[in-house]
Amino acid sequence: MSQTIAEYPVDPRPGPVRRPDSRNGRAEDIGRLLVSCADGPGIVSAITTFLHTRGANIVQSDQDSTDPRGGRFFQRLVFHLPGLAEALPRLEQEFATEVAGRFAMTFRMRDAAVPTRVALFVSRYDHCLLDLLWRWRRGELPIQVVQVVSNHPDLADDVESFGVPYAHIPVAKATKAEAEARQLELLAGRVDLVVLARYMQILSGDFLDRIGVPVINIHHSFLPAFAGAGPYERAKERGVKLVGATAHYATEDLDEGPIIEQDVVRVSHRQSAADLVRRGADIERNVLARAVGWHCEDRVLVNGRTTIVF
Amino acid sequence: MSQTIAEYPVDPRPGPVRRPDSRNGRAEDIGRLLVSCADGPGIVSAITTFLHTRGANIVQSDQDSTDPRGGRFFQRLVFHLPGLAEALPRLEQEFATEVAGRFAMTFRMRDAAVPTRVALFVSRYDHCLLDLLWRWRRGELPIQVVQVVSNHPDLADDVESFGVPYAHIPVAKATKAEAEARQLELLAGRVDLVVLARYMQILSGDFLDRIGVPVINIHHSFLPAFAGAGPYERAKERGVKLVGATAHYATEDLDEGPIIEQDVVRVSHRQSAADLVRRGADIERNVLARAVGWHCEDRVLVNGRTTIVF
Amino acid sequence: MSQTIAEYPVDPRPGPVRRPDSRNGRAEDIGRLLVSCADGPGIVSAITTFLHTRGANIVQSDQDSTDPRGGRFFQRLVFHLPGLAEALPRLEQEFATEVAGRFAMTFRMRDAAVPTRVALFVSRYDHCLLDLLWRWRRGELPIQVVQVVSNHPDLADDVESFGVPYAHIPVAKATKAEAEARQLELLAGRVDLVVLARYMQILSGDFLDRIGVPVINIHHSFLPAFAGAGPYERAKERGVKLVGATAHYATEDLDEGPIIEQDVVRVSHRQSAADLVRRGADIERNVLARAVGWHCEDRVLVNGRTTIVF
Amino acid sequence: MSQTIAEYPVDPRPGPVRRPDSRNGRAEDIGRLLVSCADGPGIVSAITTFLHTRGANIVQSDQDSTDPRGGRFFQRLVFHLPGLAEALPRLEQEFATEVAGRFAMTFRMRDAAVPTRVALFVSRYDHCLLDLLWRWRRGELPIQVVQVVSNHPDLADDVESFGVPYAHIPVAKATKAEAEARQLELLAGRVDLVVLARYMQILSGDFLDRIGVPVINIHHSFLPAFAGAGPYERAKERGVKLVGATAHYATEDLDEGPIIEQDVVRVSHRQSAADLVRRGADIERNVLARAVGWHCEDRVLVNGRTTIVF
Repeated sequence: MSQTIAEYPVDPRPGPVRRPDSRNGRAEDIGRLLVSCADGPGIVSAITTFLHTRGANIVQSDQDSTDPRGGRFFQRLVFHLPGLAEALPRLEQEFATEVAGRFAMTFRMRDAAVPTRVALFVSRYDHCLLDLLWRWRRGELPIQVVQVVSNHPDLADDVESFGVPYAHIPVAKATKAEAEARQLELLAGRVDLVVLARYMQILSGDFLDRIGVPVINIHHSFLPAFAGAGPYERAKERGVKLVGATAHYATEDLDEGPIIEQDVVRVSHRQSAADLVRRGADIERNVLARAVGWHCEDRVLVNGRTTIVF
Repeated sequence: MSQTIAEYPVDPRPGPVRRPDSRNGRAEDIGRLLVSCADGPGIVSAITTFLHTRGANIVQSDQDSTDPRGGRFFQRLVFHLPGLAEALPRLEQEFATEVAGRFAMTFRMRDAAVPTRVALFVSRYDHCLLDLLWRWRRGELPIQVVQVVSNHPDLADDVESFGVPYAHIPVAKATKAEAEARQLELLAGRVDLVVLARYMQILSGDFLDRIGVPVINIHHSFLPAFAGAGPYERAKERGVKLVGATAHYATEDLDEGPIIEQDVVRVSHRQSAADLVRRGADIERNVLARAVGWHCEDRVLVNGRTTIVF
Repeated sequence: MSQTIAEYPVDPRPGPVRRPDSRNGRAEDIGRLLVSCADGPGIVSAITTFLHTRGANIVQSDQDSTDPRGGRFFQRLVFHLPGLAEALPRLEQEFATEVAGRFAMTFRMRDAAVPTRVALFVSRYDHCLLDLLWRWRRGELPIQVVQVVSNHPDLADDVESFGVPYAHIPVAKATKAEAEARQLELLAGRVDLVVLARYMQILSGDFLDRIGVPVINIHHSFLPAFAGAGPYERAKERGVKLVGATAHYATEDLDEGPIIEQDVVRVSHRQSAADLVRRGADIERNVLARAVGWHCEDRVLVNGRTTIVF
Repeated sequence: MSQTIAEYPVDPRPGPVRRPDSRNGRAEDIGRLLVSCADGPGIVSAITTFLHTRGANIVQSDQDSTDPRGGRFFQRLVFHLPGLAEALPRLEQEFATEVAGRFAMTFRMRDAAVPTRVALFVSRYDHCLLDLLWRWRRGELPIQVVQVVSNHPDLADDVESFGVPYAHIPVAKATKAEAEARQLELLAGRVDLVVLARYMQILSGDFLDRIGVPVINIHHSFLPAFAGAGPYERAKERGVKLVGATAHYATEDLDEGPIIEQDVVRVSHRQSAADLVRRGADIERNVLARAVGWHCEDRVLVNGRTTIVF
């Protein structure tokens, strides 16, 4: 009897909450430092010497400078420090005093083992939502999904099967302010990030101010093309040969926030607008998952209207 | 109060069981005809005249010829015929008599509204399985998943939440023949297609003969590179800059069946072998979903060791 | 002595003026037929029966219909007919009378062995121009470059090394009408296609009317994003993660003509605007070469503001 | 008179010998440092402090570690130092003494303004050769092409139009050792890099040893698939849906050297083997140009059988 499909040994399996940064050590001893400041001499040396003298070993480092004379400096460092969890509060304070103050830095220092607490907002399309929930369950994303918020009841069962609470908060023109107040109350102090996973409602500038954490949105076109409504239908009418998606930070300016990630897929005259919706859905979920993952791995720095993704 | 995320009107939503072919009419009146034969003059004219005289309007047509003199001819036609469901048996028989016989054709004529009945085989990796189940539930694939078969119990709950029966049939060296007999018995007469959605067991040549329907496998490399076991680890060792996946028909020759679809994604020295597994998983599920979709839309014809995908 | 780089046998080499269509026979016996008309029953049957009764064997066929009831029908056929060159004028006339008239078709029937006569317009960027000239010399494109026209003298030597005449026709605001008159006079009756290979001047609507042949332009962004001037600088400011290029037919409406082909390449914060120009240049020349090749292989049909590319 | 093609203001034009690294200062003051050593604490701090104390400002920095405990450490730094050209010899020596010795580092320190001297080897296919020469002439690559070597006379005129000497050194089985001796003599002391731009001859291990500089080869498949001869024909037979190219350092082991870059393009049943050759040619020239550019920007470090590309 001939053999047809091999008995493949199992691939190296990603363990729970595996993260790129943690491949060189236990995640609990891995810290991340994000820095930005006016560029000038001695910054890198000051940072690395600080870490070295505290016993930290720098595992990864990326930096960028818009212009070494008068430009802006950005750096991301990943370091290994035994006993990080206990040492972090003091390390952070010393860094603030000894380094950040001297160079007028903005910085963030985090323990890679602590997942980012996320709320997902959704309307009726399930593809982005389910993809994020499933990646989280598989350990692909360093997040903790603490709440799903929707203006529709449709996806409650799916979400609850992942063990995540589902808040159905309807939104109508007249009740919008009230709905946002309920959302803010629900999430207060519980989240580090809000992800709009095809949430088809306007969030007010007031909401963005009060929520106090970054908000990532997925737009279903390769911005700035087809900003606004109905991008797939307009793509079909215009006869473009590519459709795409854009993940960006939500800001006051509609579809104008800093872009984190984009991707496209080829289409042709053979696809209808409904086909473009379907093709685009695969791009949307992948682009959003990458953007959320990079944000939560502290890879994204905002530079005005744009981002630096290390 | 400023507005931030637009109140997007809802996109054109794919209805249940929407298919590319059906965009120009109700799916229930759309038929598909796949033909292959030795090339020669008059074939296209004979086919199209046959359809025209029966009142069918040809909506799409693709053809290919390996060589007009002595080569092989392949064609796929999509046609619109009011009352197709009732007319099909007779149409098929007349085509056999009047056209296929004359040119010694192999052909298949189908009603696009009738979904392909599919069994999914899986071991423990859930990504390909769940992706197919989601797409099916969303109406993206013209299939009916009638059974999941696994040599492990792990994914039973997930599958049953889709309303699909899950058969746990353990496979060990000593019990393999028996296990295959149970699989064959379970599926007898119930399926038009078997999909190996990361099923890590050998299917015997005997099983392939007896199952009597096509079997599509997903291999986790861009074949012929890294055929066999452990492709991601070997890709890491070899330092390739791309990893990929291949969907192919399963045949007696391991990893050598006709390729339906392939795709790749860029990787770098920064990714570990476990990272490649994760990146590859996205490619695997997309490549497999495309291959299954194309097969079930009657787009794939086998030509020796290769395929023609219209 | 160990061996390091293999003595590779030479690959199958593309002969002079090899074309996809000609792979199944000598190019001189290959004809192409492009058809569009209102959709309705019997069209395909009428066309294929016409060809069959004239002794032509259909080698390839692609068709599309925007809607079988009241939509528009498009078809491209490639056929093999011994003695085509002599038979073509009569075949064309008979097709007009017997088929095209009956269905109110627009059609074009061509001998694949006859290259398309092309004029290339260019300013100072050489990448698109040289790429087309190289591909032509290598036999990759079924064209005959009969003239290069430029508003600058810079590229004269490069062009003349290909044996192509170079007309330097300066354009200033005051002399524009006169310059266009000279261009029209120079090209009258000599070209089947004009390609704007980064020609940085406005062509008037009057010129487009009078030239009487299609004009293909390459725009250095993925339209409709960054239509107009300075796309790479605006792409840098906006922080997009992809830059691209678009080949389209030039029309009265600036950057709004039917798109033939588009492609993109990934960029990041690390690239300056000047780097984007360089990355984009590779996309521009590839996209333009594909668009010109497809047009000259009669693969492109215009459908309102969009194209069908078979 | 309506206006059709916009009078685009000229894009930011890449000046002569523009390089990514030089975007933040005059190229003549930009230095690059490549380091590899056993990983351990204090390396980054030592390097950056050394540069800082010499007045250098670090503009870019990338690093990687295979494992912080017992693995290998790799770093690339780009720094700005006024008066670099004069300071370099002493800086290099001090770095060797003060830093490299202490950590047993391998390192290379270079002035970014000094182009890499390159010899191009070619047989008859012109696409990779012309593409490199043209990119060099445009200032896209930080190289100086000092010699072209070919076993055929065909491309002499093309090469000489770029002002580069062309050595026709025929190679036959019997004369191979003699031919290599002539090549070595011709290039002795004149080159920093040899690029095999589709050179269809074996280079002996002895040649590789004696030439004393890296040798980059372009292979016309996505290795390890279709290693050896005739990759496009074998790709056609196997029915793959992607063809590609691989740039790698040439080593004793045929087609096994460390991979620098790879890319692929989609193909289908419609393309003949000769069509794959043509499609592949676009990939080959782009992949080779990227690999050469990265090598000459000191972005590539060899790590056993693989590379790290910063």
